[in-house]
Amino acid sequence: MVLGKVIGTVWATRKDEQLRGLTLQLVREIEADGSDKSRVVVAVDSVGAGVGETVLFVQGSSARQTELTKNKPIDAVITAIIDKLDVE
Amino acid sequence: MVLGKVIGTVWATRKDEQLRGLTLQLVREIEADGSDKSRVVVAVDSVGAGVGETVLFVQGSSARQTELTKNKPIDAVITAIIDKLDVE
Amino acid sequence: MVLGKVIGTVWATRKDEQLRGLTLQLVREIEADGSDKSRVVVAVDSVGAGVGETVLFVQGSSARQTELTKNKPIDAVITAIIDKLDVE
Amino acid sequence: MVLGKVIGTVWATRKDEQLRGLTLQLVREIEADGSDKSRVVVAVDSVGAGVGETVLFVQGSSARQTELTKNKPIDAVITAIIDKLDVE
Amino acid sequence: MVLGKVIGTVWATRKDEQLRGLTLQLVREIEADGSDKSRVVVAVDSVGAGVGETVLFVQGSSARQTELTKNKPIDAVITAIIDKLDVE
Repeated sequence: MVLGKVIGTVWATRKDEQLRGLTLQLVREIEADGSDKSRVVVAVDSVGAGVGETVLFVQGSSARQTELTKNKPIDAVITAIIDKLDVE
Repeated sequence: MVLGKVIGTVWATRKDEQLRGLTLQLVREIEADGSDKSRVVVAVDSVGAGVGETVLFVQGSSARQTELTKNKPIDAVITAIIDKLDVE
Repeated sequence: MVLGKVIGTVWATRKDEQLRGLTLQLVREIEADGSDKSRVVVAVDSVGAGVGETVLFVQGSSARQTELTKNKPIDAVITAIIDKLDVE
Repeated sequence: MVLGKVIGTVWATRKDEQLRGLTLQLVREIEADGSDKSRVVVAVDSVGAGVGETVLFVQGSSARQTELTKNKPIDAVITAIIDKLDVE
Repeated sequence: MVLGKVIGTVWATRKDEQLRGLTLQLVREIEADGSDKSRVVVAVDSVGAGVGETVLFVQGSSARQTELTKNKPIDAVITAIIDKLDVE
């Protein structure tokens, strides 16, 4: 999984039927110290993450292992909102 | 998923039988601000996206989770045409 | 999928039994304008592509969705020979 | 698989139900000579790896092939603690 | 698949039960001309490849399609020892 920060939302009317009702968030990858990385992905939100929150997201086929995303054409999903990183 | 812009179309006569009838679009990845990235992929179009449109595409095994692409040797599919990005 | 150019062939006697009889081509990724990229992969040829031809190849689990590669330890397969790219 | 060093722990209260009870470690990829790489991932720990230890981790769908992670939205798992690297 | 050169061996006592008995080789990716790339992965050896040999390895879920690795938490496996590369 990778750390990210929610930076916005994606709106689309014309889309695959299986995306209906899903929230698509723009997530910027971040470093362990919280600084921005350049890569931004679009991830389904399964935990109610808001803009500005630090999150954990999962990619690839494992992104289809949540209730919301099962069997859907989804390759990235937010699975946790981070409370704290203990970096030693 | 990743944001992209459709920049062209791929034509191929000699191909795997399972690709017959599918539209193969050239999609350039873009940043959240709409600027071009260097990576270009070939994706099946499942939503009628035209050249110049901003789209969402999915990669890997999840690209086989649409009606058009199920069980086919396809690793990228356009699943939405973007109306608007709210970036904060 | 990604665009590539066949640049050579790989020969191996000692190999997994499931690779027997498959043609392993060296494929250099190319840009949409036909210029070379640095990445080279080894892909199974399912369409009779020769050296110098521009091809489409698929990667990951989707590379196991052709008749030749089903259930085999193959993560890249050439699925089309490109006739023309319309880039606008 | 890739070599890494455990550099910390991730804490999250609001998360997908399937992550409950799993330890999420921050793992920095390292070179074969032990020097740091820039990429850091979050991996489930299946072998009791502590901070500072050199580990092996697996990514993608194969990360769901341990008892702890089966069928869960997990794309990285630590599967071994490295004793020694023989590099010639 | 990708070309590589076996550069060493990984030793681990504390590991996932499914890794027992498998040889874990350090493999450096190489270019088609045989020169070193920077990326090193740890791959299961299914063909008896020794240090210094040029090999073919497969990654991702396809790495679980050999007899040795089926259903195991393995994302890279050596599937052939290269005799010759014809690069034109």
